[in-house]
Amino acid sequence: MTQSDHTADRIPTFHDLEAAAERIAAHVHRTPVVTCAGLDSLAGASLHFKCENLQKVGAFKARGATNAVLALVDEVAGRGVATHSSGNHAAAVARAAAIRGVPAHIVMPVTAPRVKRAAVVGYGGEITECAATLEARETTLAEVVARTGAAFIHPYDDPTVIAGQGTAGLELLAEVPDLDAVIAPVGGGGLLSGTCLAAAGAAPDVEVYGAEPAAADDAFRSLRDGRRYPSEDPDTVADGLRTALSDLTFEILRHHVAAILTVSERAIVDAMRLIWERAKLVVEPSAAVTLAAVLENPQRFHGRRVGLILSGGNVDLDRLPF
Amino acid sequence: MTQSDHTADRIPTFHDLEAAAERIAAHVHRTPVVTCAGLDSLAGASLHFKCENLQKVGAFKARGATNAVLALVDEVAGRGVATHSSGNHAAAVARAAAIRGVPAHIVMPVTAPRVKRAAVVGYGGEITECAATLEARETTLAEVVARTGAAFIHPYDDPTVIAGQGTAGLELLAEVPDLDAVIAPVGGGGLLSGTCLAAAGAAPDVEVYGAEPAAADDAFRSLRDGRRYPSEDPDTVADGLRTALSDLTFEILRHHVAAILTVSERAIVDAMRLIWERAKLVVEPSAAVTLAAVLENPQRFHGRRVGLILSGGNVDLDRLPF
Repeated sequence: MTQSDHTADRIPTFHDLEAAAERIAAHVHRTPVVTCAGLDSLAGASLHFKCENLQKVGAFKARGATNAVLALVDEVAGRGVATHSSGNHAAAVARAAAIRGVPAHIVMPVTAPRVKRAAVVGYGGEITECAATLEARETTLAEVVARTGAAFIHPYDDPTVIAGQGTAGLELLAEVPDLDAVIAPVGGGGLLSGTCLAAAGAAPDVEVYGAEPAAADDAFRSLRDGRRYPSEDPDTVADGLRTALSDLTFEILRHHVAAILTVSERAIVDAMRLIWERAKLVVEPSAAVTLAAVLENPQRFHGRRVGLILSGGNVDLDRLPF
Repeated sequence: MTQSDHTADRIPTFHDLEAAAERIAAHVHRTPVVTCAGLDSLAGASLHFKCENLQKVGAFKARGATNAVLALVDEVAGRGVATHSSGNHAAAVARAAAIRGVPAHIVMPVTAPRVKRAAVVGYGGEITECAATLEARETTLAEVVARTGAAFIHPYDDPTVIAGQGTAGLELLAEVPDLDAVIAPVGGGGLLSGTCLAAAGAAPDVEVYGAEPAAADDAFRSLRDGRRYPSEDPDTVADGLRTALSDLTFEILRHHVAAILTVSERAIVDAMRLIWERAKLVVEPSAAVTLAAVLENPQRFHGRRVGLILSGGNVDLDRLPF
């Protein structure tokens, strides 16, 4: 079997998304979809914001992690779960493990914000510290997994995680049935992949766009050139979008995404402030890339009905970028 | 007829609230109710936030103003509407007049924030400036009304305004049917009066509380002493709550409110920040008094299911109090 065949076999089906929705329903919020006349006016389009900032742990990550942890067979789950993350996925896995009643081993870089560490500890997760490099994170995680036998829950290169993330799109498409397009942020591509699969199954005429910082445009370049580029430790205010696609998310996106729209750092910060001021929602920069993509591409979205997945709202109020 | 008899005749009926809900349904948001495990944990109670910060014009004021303007008979409405306000009510009346297709004359103090003026102008309202005293506002409004024949839409001393504000409580009680208590901020008392009437008609066992800054505790003192105290131009960060009750709102509150809970300035600012950080909602200080009231009265709400009406989200991001 070739790499490509193997990857294709891992792509979640629409049934997997529906099963995920049922599996996690009691443990995550069905988040509201809000509209804002002021932002519609600015955009020249009808915008529908799916509020994953109001999700458990403050981000869509609760969906995928919960689905992945609950989907494990008892024998595997019993040995616990593990991941490495400096952000929302860490808290989401720790919370999911608490729901399942199994240990969570979370590898976090020493540079992780104190509030993120506190969230993991609050859910009963056990933190193992490591240096702030991807290599150190992976090495430390491998040691933890070898020692404990815990199951690694990857933040996006995992079919059950992707199926879980896709439930946000399922809900959005069900609540606003006549959308023309949906935009999701793209970092590692888990949310965007899930959104693609949700649209393909539930509303195949809806165009799905990725929104990405121009300063971290590996997904844009990967889809343009038909080959996967690694992350180059990019510098962007959208700290949730610094990771690169995996084989799995690349394979899903290249078949389903209408386009990846890249946006400037300035556009991200401006869009973030607009969402706070006009829509009254606390969102993180990674969520604001979706509105930035609309405002930077007015001709593409003019007069259309557009869903935007506001991926999360975890920000440090003492360090706002505006 | 005595003053008191006349006031009693003006109290909206539950049918008036239901009629208001139907009248304004196409013009305002049915706002979401959100929950937040982190805040529940802090409060030791189950909190349900009714998000009027996500309402049109960013505040519940859209409900009452829309109901009042749409309820006018054609002959009266044709001469336009008028009000004085430095805040959310001004924008709400201007917007309601635009919906009705009639002129809006808004008297605003010269000190009104530029963003509030822009909102009125954006809805096509005509601004008349005046000095920043209550006397100047009332005198200027009287001149405008005499000149134009416009109908004065009072921000709270008006049965149709109160009935409109009560629709937020109707929606909250319908969406979360097993609440033990509801808390609304109290300034002039329009929102709290409407909330009382909603509960009395839809869920009479639900206790209704007012939350008020201790620095502007005229409602607390008025209900305690059984006589209405005027506003003394109080200094509080909750700028929407500086006004005093009217005969009408006093009459409603004294029959229906379980208690007025006063909160310190520090508690308001802390609660505001908690709602931003934990619930990911941009709320103004006047909305945060509700959570402050819960956190300052832990024994009263412990283990109970409490609805909190987050009245609005209009804040200047360049002048946050925390």
